[in-house]
Amino acid sequence: MLKARSRKERVRTTPASHGRSPLGVFSRKLLGEWRKLDLAQTAEPIIVGVSGGADSVALLLALDELVQAGKLKVQIVVAHLNHKLRGADADADARWVAALAEKLGHAAVLRRADIKKRAAKSKDNLEQAARRARYEFFASVARSRKAKLVLTAHTLNDQAETILLNLIRGSGSDGLGGIEPLRPLSAGSEVVLARPLVTWARRRDTEKYCDLKSIEYRHDEMNFDDSFNRVRVRQELLHVFETINPKFVENVARNSELFRQDSAALNLMALTILDRDGRTSAQPLSAARLRAAPAAVRRRALRLWLAQHRGNLKRIEQTHVLAIEKLLFSQKSGRTIELPGGSSAFRQNGMLHYRPRPGR
Amino acid sequence: MLKARSRKERVRTTPASHGRSPLGVFSRKLLGEWRKLDLAQTAEPIIVGVSGGADSVALLLALDELVQAGKLKVQIVVAHLNHKLRGADADADARWVAALAEKLGHAAVLRRADIKKRAAKSKDNLEQAARRARYEFFASVARSRKAKLVLTAHTLNDQAETILLNLIRGSGSDGLGGIEPLRPLSAGSEVVLARPLVTWARRRDTEKYCDLKSIEYRHDEMNFDDSFNRVRVRQELLHVFETINPKFVENVARNSELFRQDSAALNLMALTILDRDGRTSAQPLSAARLRAAPAAVRRRALRLWLAQHRGNLKRIEQTHVLAIEKLLFSQKSGRTIELPGGSSAFRQNGMLHYRPRPGR
Repeated sequence: MLKARSRKERVRTTPASHGRSPLGVFSRKLLGEWRKLDLAQTAEPIIVGVSGGADSVALLLALDELVQAGKLKVQIVVAHLNHKLRGADADADARWVAALAEKLGHAAVLRRADIKKRAAKSKDNLEQAARRARYEFFASVARSRKAKLVLTAHTLNDQAETILLNLIRGSGSDGLGGIEPLRPLSAGSEVVLARPLVTWARRRDTEKYCDLKSIEYRHDEMNFDDSFNRVRVRQELLHVFETINPKFVENVARNSELFRQDSAALNLMALTILDRDGRTSAQPLSAARLRAAPAAVRRRALRLWLAQHRGNLKRIEQTHVLAIEKLLFSQKSGRTIELPGGSSAFRQNGMLHYRPRPGR
Repeated sequence: MLKARSRKERVRTTPASHGRSPLGVFSRKLLGEWRKLDLAQTAEPIIVGVSGGADSVALLLALDELVQAGKLKVQIVVAHLNHKLRGADADADARWVAALAEKLGHAAVLRRADIKKRAAKSKDNLEQAARRARYEFFASVARSRKAKLVLTAHTLNDQAETILLNLIRGSGSDGLGGIEPLRPLSAGSEVVLARPLVTWARRRDTEKYCDLKSIEYRHDEMNFDDSFNRVRVRQELLHVFETINPKFVENVARNSELFRQDSAALNLMALTILDRDGRTSAQPLSAARLRAAPAAVRRRALRLWLAQHRGNLKRIEQTHVLAIEKLLFSQKSGRTIELPGGSSAFRQNGMLHYRPRPGR
């Protein structure tokens, strides 16, 4: 099923693809999404993550096309992280991406990271370590280039795979929201991470667009750090879904947008429970107010409250949230729910309290 | 993979299964769910849909076990609809179910419906016509027996299949809520339809329980009116999901509960937009109030509002809702959105109005 990918290092550009030729379908769709997401319209630098795979090469080529056509004024900075996981191939990828950026006339930042070493140190698996290293790299390039926008080339297919993996994991509506088209690069960051292909471009669209531009892209992005399960979802599940409904990937993406909207509305409601006197900060919560809220809102409020106290939700499971919820409805006062890391939650005088780990 | 099913008409009951023997795991789990759903505790009649398949036979046997053990006081009425789709087999099923009910000492109501004729008349497909006929039959039995509760034996597997089908269809969070454990038998009905197996029992649990009781159940319920896609989901997708995560079916069911909670909370918010002076009735809506709501709530409010005006949401698609939404944000006033069946919606003086089909 999968198209054989060329490993040749040649970089070819079609003469017709530059200059004032009319925009192709792919770049027109990208421009539509760009406007919908309200992305940079001025001459500012933007960071484009390019692995060398069809997805990221297509994104780069289409952005280049839009800049050449005068539709976008941004300054493209190509960012490539060499994960050093595939030996000589990885080094060849890096050289190939650098050559492509140079040919197109854009700046390129190339870096190496020893993912195996990082994974061993942080106890992450390779996939997690690679992702973390990549986003740290993007943040550092954004900082040094004074860029406010980072782009990655996630497609509809990545979206469908992510959502099926989250469905398999049982992660609820937040998980089924999937990959967000727009979010802060990291919590609290002013740099925006955008995925302008994720709502409309299929993997085969990016391959076709590269073919059209006569650019022989390299390996498929993310292949090297894919989890075993993601590969199984891609190879064993997606095509069955598609034989049942050829529009499956599009439908999943549409679903995911509905879920993101649902989550946004529910989180907004949850915030009103945490919000007292217009401030949302870590403080005791009214048990009566929590009890009066619908379950979906109450549980989100409890998670947000725990995140405010703890800084994040690491190691907090649904069972902890449900235990605290039970505390709210319990006849008895004074019971304590132990949380991971030694902190706890308890109810007293109609209020829900958080107690940090002793000695902290 | 699938267990071969016996077609023998013998009905065997184990002597040990009646009387005061300790409850088995299956019936104890059913009792737990029964209490959680807050179902009938008094000596009232309840209608149990029994096709003769493992799922519904297991439900009947476990209810019988709970009644025999004095844990439930209900009067079981077995209801079996012969869809006449499988000729002599279907007649044999009906006789088999009647014999089982008699052996257990419960009343049984058997009826025939010519699904093919009904489908041809109503232009439904066989699956839809069979489902409609079944629920009409349950309603009529509930009426004649003065019962307030109808039970069907949908399992975790049915839930996972339904949810994957809805995912394939792209039906959003309402679809991913799947089969509700508890709902009115029909809109506005006082009769409750409960599925006390859907949150915990797998198909193989029902088969094992029948084996344990030495009852050789008949065909698998619903096989005959399954859609082609449902069979494909069952045969081609579910087992792949399960090899990736053996807990997949349970996770999907857990997910679906989260989605039902999300939908409940969002619908509640949507109702507050429709609600003026404590009444929710079909009347013009404030455009400003709709605009101020999160998208997920606004769109649900619009659907509820259309349902109030039209009696149902037949032929209303997401595109209609989005068109009305666009009307709310449009600078121009006076534009009209045509709806299926000749009715329309328009904005005037800051209010959203519904206009029925002329001459209606």
